[in-house]
Amino acid sequence: MEEDETRSIKWHLADSSNPAPMSPFSNGRILYNEHPLSRPVPGRTVIYDTLQTIDIGAVPLNGGFLMQTIVLSSDPYLRTRMRPQEIKDFAPPFVIGQPLDNYGIGLVLRSEDDKYPPGIYLYGFHFFQQYSVRNDTDTIFPWIPLQKPQALSWSLFVGTLGMPGQTAYFGWKALVEEKAKMCKTLFVSVGGGPVGSFVIQYAKMNHPQLKIIASAGTQPKLDFMKSIGADVVFNYKTENPATVLAEHGPIGIYWDMTAGSTLDAAVENMENYGLIIACGATSVYNTPAKDRPQIQNFDLLFRKSITVHGFRSTDFMEQYLMQFFAEVPTLVLDGKIKPSEQRYLGLEKAEEALIDVHTGDNFGKAVIIVSDDS
Amino acid sequence: MEEDETRSIKWHLADSSNPAPMSPFSNGRILYNEHPLSRPVPGRTVIYDTLQTIDIGAVPLNGGFLMQTIVLSSDPYLRTRMRPQEIKDFAPPFVIGQPLDNYGIGLVLRSEDDKYPPGIYLYGFHFFQQYSVRNDTDTIFPWIPLQKPQALSWSLFVGTLGMPGQTAYFGWKALVEEKAKMCKTLFVSVGGGPVGSFVIQYAKMNHPQLKIIASAGTQPKLDFMKSIGADVVFNYKTENPATVLAEHGPIGIYWDMTAGSTLDAAVENMENYGLIIACGATSVYNTPAKDRPQIQNFDLLFRKSITVHGFRSTDFMEQYLMQFFAEVPTLVLDGKIKPSEQRYLGLEKAEEALIDVHTGDNFGKAVIIVSDDS
Repeated sequence: MEEDETRSIKWHLADSSNPAPMSPFSNGRILYNEHPLSRPVPGRTVIYDTLQTIDIGAVPLNGGFLMQTIVLSSDPYLRTRMRPQEIKDFAPPFVIGQPLDNYGIGLVLRSEDDKYPPGIYLYGFHFFQQYSVRNDTDTIFPWIPLQKPQALSWSLFVGTLGMPGQTAYFGWKALVEEKAKMCKTLFVSVGGGPVGSFVIQYAKMNHPQLKIIASAGTQPKLDFMKSIGADVVFNYKTENPATVLAEHGPIGIYWDMTAGSTLDAAVENMENYGLIIACGATSVYNTPAKDRPQIQNFDLLFRKSITVHGFRSTDFMEQYLMQFFAEVPTLVLDGKIKPSEQRYLGLEKAEEALIDVHTGDNFGKAVIIVSDDS
Repeated sequence: MEEDETRSIKWHLADSSNPAPMSPFSNGRILYNEHPLSRPVPGRTVIYDTLQTIDIGAVPLNGGFLMQTIVLSSDPYLRTRMRPQEIKDFAPPFVIGQPLDNYGIGLVLRSEDDKYPPGIYLYGFHFFQQYSVRNDTDTIFPWIPLQKPQALSWSLFVGTLGMPGQTAYFGWKALVEEKAKMCKTLFVSVGGGPVGSFVIQYAKMNHPQLKIIASAGTQPKLDFMKSIGADVVFNYKTENPATVLAEHGPIGIYWDMTAGSTLDAAVENMENYGLIIACGATSVYNTPAKDRPQIQNFDLLFRKSITVHGFRSTDFMEQYLMQFFAEVPTLVLDGKIKPSEQRYLGLEKAEEALIDVHTGDNFGKAVIIVSDDS
């Protein structure tokens, strides 16, 4: 990247003299309590527990390090982890009685591991817990030390600069970019969310010839999608997707995060040799297997020579993560990718954040601010 | 190809003094009569018509040529053409009152076009009609002059050496071959048909490490699939595909020609990063749109990072047709690809052939022998 000095990213390291609260004191946690049958249920699926205490200055580290959780991410995919152990899926199940974990940022307060000295921030899989003793290997993702551009809050690193933004960026780079050069129309469902809104903006910036159609379920989301470059927006709850897509299609590329009736309408309106990116399934997560929404138009994949690429962000992490961190923070600083987030202040608000992403009640990336993320 | 002399292919040209019947005489035709709601209906969907007469020696050619139809193909995809004009699909609709057309072989009897002299055989889209006056441009596919290896019958050129074999070969070459090198399991549905049986044999020959699972609906088809290299065969009508595939999977590559419940069972048993080739939809062709079988597991495409490539044989014809004709006839002569065909003798049997491919009552590629194809 060639940037002029005024726009260059400033990094800073946290002050390792960060004051810790008096010890021992309550260490708040969000525990997984019960498998939901459909959406997570308030007061039942997870509970906020304050019974555990911790002595910040004295808790044994056993060769590891003490982490203060700064921000956590609430994502729709977490619903796939709310299941009995014996059911297999792409992400590991939560364990009843144990704290949830997910993408987040933590600050190392004390350490017995030279790789993770006090004062550094780690991107990785954090427990829904205010303080945790961790080590180098107890996580399904490697810890990634991050230095934060001063103008950006840590919460962005679980949204536009975290897994959702990475999902959009990786999928676009690996599976869409070449096809986008010769297409006229892109349709994005769940376009008001952190993945969809990234796709809209990144597509608009790099492929201005694309007509971008985007769907969401509330008027503020439609307005937001318009403001970031979508040419046609519609509310899938009040308008018939098939009608809208028939009017504004045919669709060259469909970025699918729903997998239900919107997908069916999209397949019906794909052009020959179209491309579908299967990237999420919001219509499915909260539905018992037997009631899962079905799609009727699968045979059109053959009739129209359509390609579907299903992917998960981790598929391309190794290939594109460094490129992502080289390119995207600057785009955010420059206002070329506009994040939108809904902040839930305090770990005790995590339950609300976990539920809202399944009802569409949040607007923007749902982030849980556990500690000051300035 | 390096072949020793004894195995080399012998070509011959037909005798252009081929005797024609006395003229004028009845020119049998299969006319499209009525749109079927489900399967083609005996006596209604098409009718055999003998009212038209033709004077072989005197019919005006108008710069074109007179063709005697030798063999015609009956394929499941023809059902997609039995529809009203206003419904769009990948292949053009049949026209009420007009003869059907499809892949076949014809012999040029008289000609006013130097490109197509009397005595040559043409592969292309032929009318379901004993004799036809055609020209260079009245066909959706170019006419391909073929010279026949002496040991092979013309009927093979609409089966293993025609569109079905080409579909299997093109799809394998373009979309599967690289993936097959690193896979352990291949599942083929409609494995007793001309596409599926080609895929089984070609896969076995080139990728012996693959465990091949194949499904069909009758015991003779299961026996045939076993005899040509399938390791596991099952009857989808009497066994639960999900159970069989769970036992013998997970599946690395699925060659799908059904698009219904067998597909759903396959998706459920695909391995991560699996590949699905969407190549046909036998479960759909005869079903009104509103009753089309649905699939429930589409979200697994994302959860397992699966790729689906839908394709039609014409997509890769230009790229692979010459390679196909260079490679496959020799494989058939050498017995490495074993065709299986069901011959319907006489154009008046075409109706039966058109219906049988939708009930599974045929065993092997359904070919209509209109004239002597020796």
